[in-house]
Amino acid sequence: MIFRQLLDAETSTYSYILADEESREAALIDSVLEQVDRDLQCLQDLNLTLKYILETHIHADHITGASVLREKTGAKTAVAKASNVDCADLLLSDADRLQLGAVEIQVLATPGHTNSCLSYYVGDRVFTGDALLIRGCGRTDFQEGSSERLFDSVRKKLFALPDETLVFPAHDYKGLLCSSIDEEKRLNPRLNLSISKAQFVDIMKGLKLSQPKKIEQAVPRNLKCGKGEAA
Amino acid sequence: MIFRQLLDAETSTYSYILADEESREAALIDSVLEQVDRDLQCLQDLNLTLKYILETHIHADHITGASVLREKTGAKTAVAKASNVDCADLLLSDADRLQLGAVEIQVLATPGHTNSCLSYYVGDRVFTGDALLIRGCGRTDFQEGSSERLFDSVRKKLFALPDETLVFPAHDYKGLLCSSIDEEKRLNPRLNLSISKAQFVDIMKGLKLSQPKKIEQAVPRNLKCGKGEAA
Repeated sequence: MIFRQLLDAETSTYSYILADEESREAALIDSVLEQVDRDLQCLQDLNLTLKYILETHIHADHITGASVLREKTGAKTAVAKASNVDCADLLLSDADRLQLGAVEIQVLATPGHTNSCLSYYVGDRVFTGDALLIRGCGRTDFQEGSSERLFDSVRKKLFALPDETLVFPAHDYKGLLCSSIDEEKRLNPRLNLSISKAQFVDIMKGLKLSQPKKIEQAVPRNLKCGKGEAA
Repeated sequence: MIFRQLLDAETSTYSYILADEESREAALIDSVLEQVDRDLQCLQDLNLTLKYILETHIHADHITGASVLREKTGAKTAVAKASNVDCADLLLSDADRLQLGAVEIQVLATPGHTNSCLSYYVGDRVFTGDALLIRGCGRTDFQEGSSERLFDSVRKKLFALPDETLVFPAHDYKGLLCSSIDEEKRLNPRLNLSISKAQFVDIMKGLKLSQPKKIEQAVPRNLKCGKGEAA
């Protein structure tokens, strides 16, 4: 599999290109509007054809490049069915599978940060969006978030993957680029195996978080696959 | 092999942890002083023992964490013999080899950005410092840099590696994290295979670059393996 991790430094967002070496079909996970030109160049440089533009969730911190990428490439945009987005070409549910030639992407519903978060499991890697971060997790206090649901998503879906699975999140703010299921089971301060669901709910209640800077602009735009004018 | 790429966002510097799964011996390439605590935590989380603290060159843009890391771990610091640094435990030359258990690190002398740049070749990856960047290369106008030598280093040493070798540089300023020898042979605007040495020398002469912000502080400190007080 061809694999590239990409960074939007302003929002500390990671995007990912996955592709099949033989067919050259590619997917781009969690694109950032401001990085569309860079990402298209990267796809072209690697001789790839973009087939799927995948979102892990309706982001509150950046605007997706999905709509522009679809316009320029003809690739299909995909979000969770549960997000009630009506602009996407594909509405994904738990256990759905997508193919890039011989590369299979397995969809895992991992709600909790928002009501419709997805993770994408591909070979020895899982792309967890904001459900599971490196030594952390997404907040659960807006967009129909639920600490109880997030706990179950991480423990029952993500921690059920093989220990050596590499975890690639949507963000990291310390310059870490990936983790593994084993590390998060042992070391995640909110979600390691010694913590109960009640403890996790308490931890999440105790967080005093300010609103993300871009939420007022990002969520409505992302519900339209990134279409629309800057506010 | 265990592998982690790490980012210092302030200076857009990439550091790298390489380790042998069996013996848990690790090397850290191009550490950043401000990230020493994060990097030590990362080594501990992965149950690794730091054996080598490697520099690709005497950096002008950040201060190495080598000296602090050596103090805290007992690992050996290593730089190029040609750098005339006298504080390091190991002075490396072209074709030297270092072992982390079964993982072999091959030293490649790739001067030109500075007179003593090294690259480290490990399995299917090469860590190129500032010799070869993604679609670029290090400047050649200070620290005894030489465009002619850099051209030869890239063309004769790095481009002699297998095309599929992944290129991990010391920096990227667009959020790209890695490249490959094949991509750089085809697409590097300064060093792709259609460009002659004379053309490369002209390109480098034509660059109008300002001094790196930290050079006055960074170079003297790095010549002492990062020891000393902040200016």
